[in-house]
Amino acid sequence: MFNQKINRVRKTFTQYNIDSLLVSNFYNILYLTGFKTLTTDEREAFVLVTKSNIYLFTDARYPNNFKFEILNFKLKLLEPGKGLFFYLQEIFKEENIQALGIEAEDLRVHEYLKLKLIFSNVKIICTEKLIIQLRAIKEKEEIEKITKACQITDQCLKEIIKTIKIGDTEKEVAFRIEKWLNDKGYDCAFDPIVAINKNSSIPHYHTKDGLGRIKNKSVVLIDFGAEYQNYCSDITRMIFIEQPGSEIINIYNQLLNIQEKVIKEINNQKNPKNIDFFCRNQIGKKQLPNYSHSTGHGVGLEIHEYPKISQNSIDVLQDDQVFTIEPGVYFKNKWGIRIEDTVVIQNNKAEILTRFKKEPILIKFK
Amino acid sequence: MFNQKINRVRKTFTQYNIDSLLVSNFYNILYLTGFKTLTTDEREAFVLVTKSNIYLFTDARYPNNFKFEILNFKLKLLEPGKGLFFYLQEIFKEENIQALGIEAEDLRVHEYLKLKLIFSNVKIICTEKLIIQLRAIKEKEEIEKITKACQITDQCLKEIIKTIKIGDTEKEVAFRIEKWLNDKGYDCAFDPIVAINKNSSIPHYHTKDGLGRIKNKSVVLIDFGAEYQNYCSDITRMIFIEQPGSEIINIYNQLLNIQEKVIKEINNQKNPKNIDFFCRNQIGKKQLPNYSHSTGHGVGLEIHEYPKISQNSIDVLQDDQVFTIEPGVYFKNKWGIRIEDTVVIQNNKAEILTRFKKEPILIKFK
Repeated sequence: MFNQKINRVRKTFTQYNIDSLLVSNFYNILYLTGFKTLTTDEREAFVLVTKSNIYLFTDARYPNNFKFEILNFKLKLLEPGKGLFFYLQEIFKEENIQALGIEAEDLRVHEYLKLKLIFSNVKIICTEKLIIQLRAIKEKEEIEKITKACQITDQCLKEIIKTIKIGDTEKEVAFRIEKWLNDKGYDCAFDPIVAINKNSSIPHYHTKDGLGRIKNKSVVLIDFGAEYQNYCSDITRMIFIEQPGSEIINIYNQLLNIQEKVIKEINNQKNPKNIDFFCRNQIGKKQLPNYSHSTGHGVGLEIHEYPKISQNSIDVLQDDQVFTIEPGVYFKNKWGIRIEDTVVIQNNKAEILTRFKKEPILIKFK
Repeated sequence: MFNQKINRVRKTFTQYNIDSLLVSNFYNILYLTGFKTLTTDEREAFVLVTKSNIYLFTDARYPNNFKFEILNFKLKLLEPGKGLFFYLQEIFKEENIQALGIEAEDLRVHEYLKLKLIFSNVKIICTEKLIIQLRAIKEKEEIEKITKACQITDQCLKEIIKTIKIGDTEKEVAFRIEKWLNDKGYDCAFDPIVAINKNSSIPHYHTKDGLGRIKNKSVVLIDFGAEYQNYCSDITRMIFIEQPGSEIINIYNQLLNIQEKVIKEINNQKNPKNIDFFCRNQIGKKQLPNYSHSTGHGVGLEIHEYPKISQNSIDVLQDDQVFTIEPGVYFKNKWGIRIEDTVVIQNNKAEILTRFKKEPILIKFK
C-alpha cells in the first residue's frame, strides 16, 4: 500500500520539475509511511521523498514505538546538533538534488525562508496540495477501513439511541458516543455534535459549550464519526422525542427526499459544483431556506478532505473517492435538521457507506 | 484584559517597522480577542491589528455564537466574493497601511506568496513568535484561570485514585479522568497519559494505543491536565500498586528530592538553560540516566508554550510566567517515573500550582 502511494508521489515530480519532495504535513506523512506523531502541529517528523529513497526524520522518542510497516525507508534521528537541515545537506549532496518541492499549503513561512537561505544552490519549488489531491482517490485498503468506520458509526448510533432519556444533556449524549467508541477500541473522528432544538439550527455547534437537554418534543441532531485505523466516517441523523410537530416531519421528509435524489444525481453528474447547485436548487424549489455550509466534503485520514462538494469546488468526481452528502434546513433560533451520509463512488455510481436508517427516528417513552 | 494585550502587540510595531499585524494563529486569535473557532487549522478566522483598529474576519457561522467580550473590534464577514484579501485591500487603502507584519511561524507559504503578489505596494514583514512571546508573560486573570485549572487536576487525581483497581486498563483510567473533567464542565488539556510498567518508560506514550493493565506491583504513571476557560494545567504523579520494590521507591525519592531542588533553584537562577543543566547534573550525580525530553515548558492557552526549560532555550525566567518542571528517570522496557508540577513565578519566586501530594502514592487493596 505504501509503495504504491510513494510511486504516485514520484510520478508528479516531472510535472513540478522537482527531484525531491519535503513532506511536512502530519496527515501526509501518515498517508505515505504509516508513521504517526503525537501532535499534528509540533513538527515531530518530516519525510523526504527522492527518486530513489524515502527518508523519515524524527526524534528518538518514536521509533521504538513504531511498527515499521514499510522497511525500505531510511530513518534519520533528529537530535541536538543533527537537525533536519543537517541531514538535508548530506542527502542533497549524496543524491545531487537540484530542485526540492515543498508543501506550500503546509510549510510555514519561517521554515520556507530558512530553506531558501541555507540551500541557495537548490531550487525550492512550491507544490500546492500535491499529496492531499492524491489522497482524494482512495486505495482499496483505505475504502475498506472507511467502510468499517461507517459500520462502527451505524452500530454506535443504534446503541446510543437506546440510552436516550428525558433530562439527558447534549454533553452526556456526546460523551456516551465517545465512551462507546473508546470502549470498543475506536476513536471519534471529531468531537461529536449533539444539538437540541434551537442549538440544532447552528450548523457548526460546539456541544462542549452547550447546555441543551432532552425534553418532550425535542428535536435532536446527532453528527459524529468514528475513526478506525486512522480512517474516518461521518454521519448525521435526526431524532424526534415524543410527538414532533407535523410541520417538522413534513420538512424532514422533503429534505430526505432531496438528499437521496442528490446521491442518485452523482451517478449522472461528476461536477461537484453542479451537484451542489442541484441540491440547493431542490431546496429552493420546496421554498426551504438555503444552507450556509457546503453540500459535502471528502473523508479519509482527515474528516475534511477532497473532493469538496461546494460552489467553488474545482474537483471532478470519480471512482474511489469518498465524501459526504449533507444538506440541511435551518430555522434560526428555532430548529435545524441535517441528513448526512458518507458515500463512495465505485463503477461511476455513488454507494452509501453509512447505512443507518433514514426515516425520521421517533423516540416515545410511554 | 483584551485591550491590554492589544496594546502590548502595538508596542512591538516600532521594533518590526510595521503599522499592522495579520494574526493567523488560532491560539493567538483566541488570546487577543477571546474568539475561538471550531478547528485550530482550518483558517476559520483572521485578526488584523492596526494602529487604530482591530478587525476580526470570520464567516457567518460564528458571530451568533460569540459572546463579544471586546466590542471595539470591527467584524468583517467572510463570504463568497468577499474573502480576506478583499477586505485587506479596503482596509489598507482606508488606513494607508505601508507595512504588514505576518506571523512567520504560523502563516503558510502559499498564503505568504499570495499576500506578496496581491499587495505588491505594501511591505510584508516576517515577525517571529511575536504574540507567543507576549503570551509567556501572563496577566492576573490568566494566572487565576491556570491556578483554577491546577486545582481541578488536584481534585480529579484525588477522585480517580480512589477508583483504581486490579485489572483496570490504561485506557479505562484515562477515560475516567476525561469523564470526571467533562462531567464537571471542564476539558482535558491533552489526551491523558496513563502508562503502566514498561509503558511508563516511554516518555511520550500514546495511551490510546496501549494495552497495559493494573496488576500487583504495577508502576503507574499518570500525566494529564485540565482546561479551564481555555487555560491549561499539567501534572504527573506516580502510583505504585501493592508492594513496590524498595529500589524503585528509593529512586522515586531521589527524583522527588531533585525535582523540589530544581523548583527552589528558580528563586536564584533565571536562565532556563542553567535550570535544565542543574537538573540533569543532579540526576547524573545520583548515577541515574539522563532523560530525553526537556525539563519543562510554558503552559497557558496551549499545553506547550514559552518559556522552554531546555538546553537550547533562549528565554529568561521572570515574574508571571507559568511553566512545568518535570524531570524523569526511565529504564527502557522496565519502568519509568516522572514528577511534574505546574509552577508560576511571582516576586521572583517559583510557586507550585499543582498541589497534589508528592510522596509516592501507594495503593493497597488488602
